[in-house]
Amino acid sequence: MDYEFLTPETVPGYIRSKPELSAIVDSENIKDVKEIGDGNLNLVFIVHDAMGGTIVIKQALPFVRLVGPTWPMTPFRAEREAEALRIHGSFNQALVPKVYLYDPELFVIAMENLSGYRTWRGALIEGLRHEGAAELIGQYVAGVAFGTSVIGMPAEEQKTLMSKSINPELCKITEDLVFTEPYDDIGRNAVLPANQIDAMALANDPVMIHAMGEAKWKFMTNAEALIHGDLHTGSVMVRAITGDEGPSMAIAFDSEFSFYGPVAFDIGALWANYTLAAARAFALGNFEFAHWTLSLVGKTWNAFSKTFSELYESRVDSRVWKSEMLEDRLSEWKSDAWLFAAAKMSRRIVGLAKAADIETLEPNLREGAARGVLELSRHLVTTRNSDTSTTTFESLASETLNRHKTR
Amino acid sequence: MDYEFLTPETVPGYIRSKPELSAIVDSENIKDVKEIGDGNLNLVFIVHDAMGGTIVIKQALPFVRLVGPTWPMTPFRAEREAEALRIHGSFNQALVPKVYLYDPELFVIAMENLSGYRTWRGALIEGLRHEGAAELIGQYVAGVAFGTSVIGMPAEEQKTLMSKSINPELCKITEDLVFTEPYDDIGRNAVLPANQIDAMALANDPVMIHAMGEAKWKFMTNAEALIHGDLHTGSVMVRAITGDEGPSMAIAFDSEFSFYGPVAFDIGALWANYTLAAARAFALGNFEFAHWTLSLVGKTWNAFSKTFSELYESRVDSRVWKSEMLEDRLSEWKSDAWLFAAAKMSRRIVGLAKAADIETLEPNLREGAARGVLELSRHLVTTRNSDTSTTTFESLASETLNRHKTR
Repeated sequence: MDYEFLTPETVPGYIRSKPELSAIVDSENIKDVKEIGDGNLNLVFIVHDAMGGTIVIKQALPFVRLVGPTWPMTPFRAEREAEALRIHGSFNQALVPKVYLYDPELFVIAMENLSGYRTWRGALIEGLRHEGAAELIGQYVAGVAFGTSVIGMPAEEQKTLMSKSINPELCKITEDLVFTEPYDDIGRNAVLPANQIDAMALANDPVMIHAMGEAKWKFMTNAEALIHGDLHTGSVMVRAITGDEGPSMAIAFDSEFSFYGPVAFDIGALWANYTLAAARAFALGNFEFAHWTLSLVGKTWNAFSKTFSELYESRVDSRVWKSEMLEDRLSEWKSDAWLFAAAKMSRRIVGLAKAADIETLEPNLREGAARGVLELSRHLVTTRNSDTSTTTFESLASETLNRHKTR
Repeated sequence: MDYEFLTPETVPGYIRSKPELSAIVDSENIKDVKEIGDGNLNLVFIVHDAMGGTIVIKQALPFVRLVGPTWPMTPFRAEREAEALRIHGSFNQALVPKVYLYDPELFVIAMENLSGYRTWRGALIEGLRHEGAAELIGQYVAGVAFGTSVIGMPAEEQKTLMSKSINPELCKITEDLVFTEPYDDIGRNAVLPANQIDAMALANDPVMIHAMGEAKWKFMTNAEALIHGDLHTGSVMVRAITGDEGPSMAIAFDSEFSFYGPVAFDIGALWANYTLAAARAFALGNFEFAHWTLSLVGKTWNAFSKTFSELYESRVDSRVWKSEMLEDRLSEWKSDAWLFAAAKMSRRIVGLAKAADIETLEPNLREGAARGVLELSRHLVTTRNSDTSTTTFESLASETLNRHKTR
């Protein structure tokens, strides 16, 4: 892929060339362009003008920056992200950043700058409680699940949208990194030496492999809704209404992994990342905060379930979809969320993409936290066969993580 | 849609204009063009030249002929059919007619003329046994299930194919006529006066409505394979190797309903139509033949299961897909085939599209046959929760149909 990469110096000129952005920032009076970078895949610039106008310019790179051009990555993912933000935003205006422009030539998204927001993962690592964020994100998932599925969208429109929303390259990352490589290392896994035995036990657990095979099949065939596809706590931004914590706003962003997949995958991703935050808190002896983070599992589920049930009242077709259909969907999604949560938490311990919650612990604390998460993931895939309540999830997680917290 | 409809008079000129057909028929020496018509949706011409060459020319009409231009029907379905025939044929050369040409301007498919073949429904109505046909069609379904799913096809290629294969208009027909209208009549249902009570009992059975809601959701979201989508016995052609019955060849055709859907839908469609043939045979007192037609349920399933299991050995990715994955798929598909069979048999009794097996019975015999099929469909959706073996299906069908065979 050959296209111009933006720099802080070229961003003002770029904005000037796009008249549709003139209502957002005054391109003749750009005061400040700061490259923040979201890590590996994109260039991200925060722009302020002299009048208080502000915007985010995000450009997709055609490779993984950490590795360089030897690991190419389609920049067309920016189109998937822009489309998902637009569509998800149409159902959840307050829960998704506004998109001002998508530029298919430079793979640029110009979007709302969420001043005062920070990533939820960072806040959880600091032990801050953003009350209400778990519920808001549960509502976001419900809005997407209803609004983009055949339950809330006319079938013909939904089929056209599904067809446009395939995302093979980014789905492959999930198929490989989440469902496969933790159980079949191709040289991208890594753990502390002390956790080698735990990673081996995971990789050789036939029950876990079977469960992951099932999870991977569901991920690849259950074309239910235009899911976020990568809804961890680093894809959520939070802002306390006053101060550093307490009642908060929340926004879901970074939806470049979006495609038509299983609704429960987004829920399981959240649960897994709440669990990682809890594992950190247990390791640090911050028990009260650990229990608070685990309570987010039920809070997200209950908000999702309540919102989806309310939306279900206005389904596009109620002829054979009665109240039993709603119960079926909710119970299937709850059970599958356990499965996807197990997949998502264990891969963050052994696989290529680690989570800062665990990685920033000192090794002697990290060891027990990692062991607890891996053991928990193996418990989850069997327990879900008999009990899928979120209180059971929370107590199983609490017991397992607490038991492994020290050596 | 404005395009030229072919007639027996214009077909020779049409063939002459397509040099790619010159190897099949000699367009300068066309001996005979016969319009056979497949009923409602297409013009079908069988062409012979003076040298023994022969071809079928099938043109999609932009409306349902029975009703006329007031019921439009996208002719682009011909593209779906041509693509499905090509792809299915690549996995099952002997089980699908060869496609010589697809003409996107006139929506014409030029394909192999299957001389000596007849529709299986017609043969079953006459009480003829085409041995081996059920097994061959089971193999066909297995080839499609493996070859077009992520089990047998690289994931990226599969996603692209899925995206190209959406078929909203024809899926809507199934969504409405199979899963919905039998339970919510919009004026297109019809039964004998004596069966009104049975149709009412079906439409008002909350267990059946719940099951159909579930079946409809699976149909609309389980994007497993490029299924046939309308695999009744009228979409299968059979030919006895010698005489009118005995060891036979079989071909699946008319795949214009093809899209990425649940594998079990094709299996359930076959089972439902075997059951309709059995209901006719019971009504006529032809018990031996009735039991033979019901034995096709197990024969198709066993051939499907055996072939799919063999193909599974060469799956594209065996890292987390072990033998348990194969067992999961087969047991899920078997159970769902019961559900789809129930949907497909009852709609053929009460819905818009009837089956000749039942419709050509005299009213006094038709009444009991129809009642038996409707009662059976209601039994199937509950029995599958505890037992999904094909022998149970066959004995339940036999008992129910036999009990209702006379007034």
